[in-house]
Amino acid sequence: MATVTGESSKNGAAQNLMEKAPWTDEQGIAMKVYNGIALALEILVLYIKMTATWLHCLYQLVVPPEPKSVNGEIIMITGAGHGMGRETALRFARLGGTIVCVDINPTGNQETVDLIKEQKGKAHRFECDVTDREAINVLAEKIRREVGEVTMLVNNAGIMPCKPLLQTSEKEIRASFEVNILAHLWLLQAFLPSMMERNHGHIVAMSSMAGVVGLRNLVPYCATKFAVRGLMEALHEELREDKLKDYSGIKLTVICPYIVDTGLCKNPKIKFPSLMKILTPQEAADSIVDAVRRNYYEITIPSSLYYINMICRAFPRAVPLYLKDFLDSGLEAHT
Amino acid sequence: MATVTGESSKNGAAQNLMEKAPWTDEQGIAMKVYNGIALALEILVLYIKMTATWLHCLYQLVVPPEPKSVNGEIIMITGAGHGMGRETALRFARLGGTIVCVDINPTGNQETVDLIKEQKGKAHRFECDVTDREAINVLAEKIRREVGEVTMLVNNAGIMPCKPLLQTSEKEIRASFEVNILAHLWLLQAFLPSMMERNHGHIVAMSSMAGVVGLRNLVPYCATKFAVRGLMEALHEELREDKLKDYSGIKLTVICPYIVDTGLCKNPKIKFPSLMKILTPQEAADSIVDAVRRNYYEITIPSSLYYINMICRAFPRAVPLYLKDFLDSGLEAHT
Repeated sequence: MATVTGESSKNGAAQNLMEKAPWTDEQGIAMKVYNGIALALEILVLYIKMTATWLHCLYQLVVPPEPKSVNGEIIMITGAGHGMGRETALRFARLGGTIVCVDINPTGNQETVDLIKEQKGKAHRFECDVTDREAINVLAEKIRREVGEVTMLVNNAGIMPCKPLLQTSEKEIRASFEVNILAHLWLLQAFLPSMMERNHGHIVAMSSMAGVVGLRNLVPYCATKFAVRGLMEALHEELREDKLKDYSGIKLTVICPYIVDTGLCKNPKIKFPSLMKILTPQEAADSIVDAVRRNYYEITIPSSLYYINMICRAFPRAVPLYLKDFLDSGLEAHT
Repeated sequence: MATVTGESSKNGAAQNLMEKAPWTDEQGIAMKVYNGIALALEILVLYIKMTATWLHCLYQLVVPPEPKSVNGEIIMITGAGHGMGRETALRFARLGGTIVCVDINPTGNQETVDLIKEQKGKAHRFECDVTDREAINVLAEKIRREVGEVTMLVNNAGIMPCKPLLQTSEKEIRASFEVNILAHLWLLQAFLPSMMERNHGHIVAMSSMAGVVGLRNLVPYCATKFAVRGLMEALHEELREDKLKDYSGIKLTVICPYIVDTGLCKNPKIKFPSLMKILTPQEAADSIVDAVRRNYYEITIPSSLYYINMICRAFPRAVPLYLKDFLDSGLEAHT
């Protein structure tokens, strides 16, 4: 295995030295002891850090972090003309944010702006097809000129064809990917750089419980919503692990709602409505705004599903499938 | 909450009856007791099933399921001209499968076919760009005519641009989605129907450890590889939960390799090569063929990462990040 040897000697500086330098036996042993102690110390520090973080997380379950102010932030929301996008916009406006409402549908979008202005909030309307990358660049320039630098980006716009995979058309599949995931990437490329320059910002991405668990009649949709979680986790690491600059001022939040009554879900099926009820966009938006203000990385709505999923993922796969069958909920195909 | 009430009365037949029927008080109580007992029994059965499955899974850790024969299967492999695709093709051919080698690069593909024929195996070469849906339909027809019905589909072809998100071009991002996930959907739409007709088949999809954990320099790649896992999980449920027909004869396998030396990874970084070494395509293919023959749903290569990830996902998110930093491996951007 030439590659492995090659790689291992490329890394681990001490190891490297040992292989090449003309050490005496005693020096070699001393080096090994030194490396052993260094590694043991590293593991000890790791253990302490992990334990402290565990305790901190448990503490936060009881005493959640204080919600931050969004007063003065410029908050751009895609799909603001409807459902959760609109409700989130209204809430952020009430908290003093300047809302940049983006939607492909000017009527709904104008309604949202009017509703915000009625409650004495600040809002701007921009029409844009977020799947058109060139249009996004034009939009970004226009917002910069007319409103200012966007400091919070809420990637909310989404579509959900609901039918068996073999009945889903190429057009529907491509549209799902364009709106649900590729648009996130284009918008990040347009709005992240100014956040990085000032180490201040917040990216919010709408995934779904269908981005956490695979569900029938939603094969391409699940793929796009899993993709959102992958994108956000990778971006989180890219910002966190950057060695040249500190980006700890840029926060990321992934939202995974279960069934929200926004018109996307045509035939929801709920066996235990008290445990997993269909949410209104208002309820979902309350959770979204709360999660963003507390800088949570990922939430499910309702939050109980977060813990259920965390525990189930530690089981062998076949075990939670029985629980899923028992709970017996999901979406029927469009009729 | 009109919606919730509306939905809850639509489901739960007994509940529905209770709301509408003119029960006397005694009948109402009897109905509630009956429902309570029915639910308790359902939970008991659930508990027994889950425990039995747990025990079965533990048993299989010690005594793995017998590998199935692939003799006589028609096994189509995309990206067969190179790396893991080629090595997997060679192994399945040795086990008696007829290999349908598909690649966009005719030279590498012909080499794979030649290698299979040298070892007295059966192989056919087809040139196809799997991102071209029309070309896939033409290909499917040609394979059907010249070889027969594909009974195992290995969605292996993939690309991996490795650089920070802001330096990744629209073209690179689009190509990643086209090859790594959309092609899977087109190939499924073309080859799944005949498997469903005969309730016999196997779908193998190449995801990655980057489809399980977000990694820097791989933001769009992670999105596509998370998407593969979402696609497969949703498809699994769609087949499993079908009420009209039994599709238990169609098996799904998701492969999540860590760093494999196929030329895709330009600058791998491994701190503990003994724990997480760079794999050769040969080693990876051994694991792939083994997982497929034992009908495993999902594997990581090396398998140790499967359990590490399972345990870490049950922790609060910040905890395993320290472990990730400690292990300190990943891919540096292309230079």
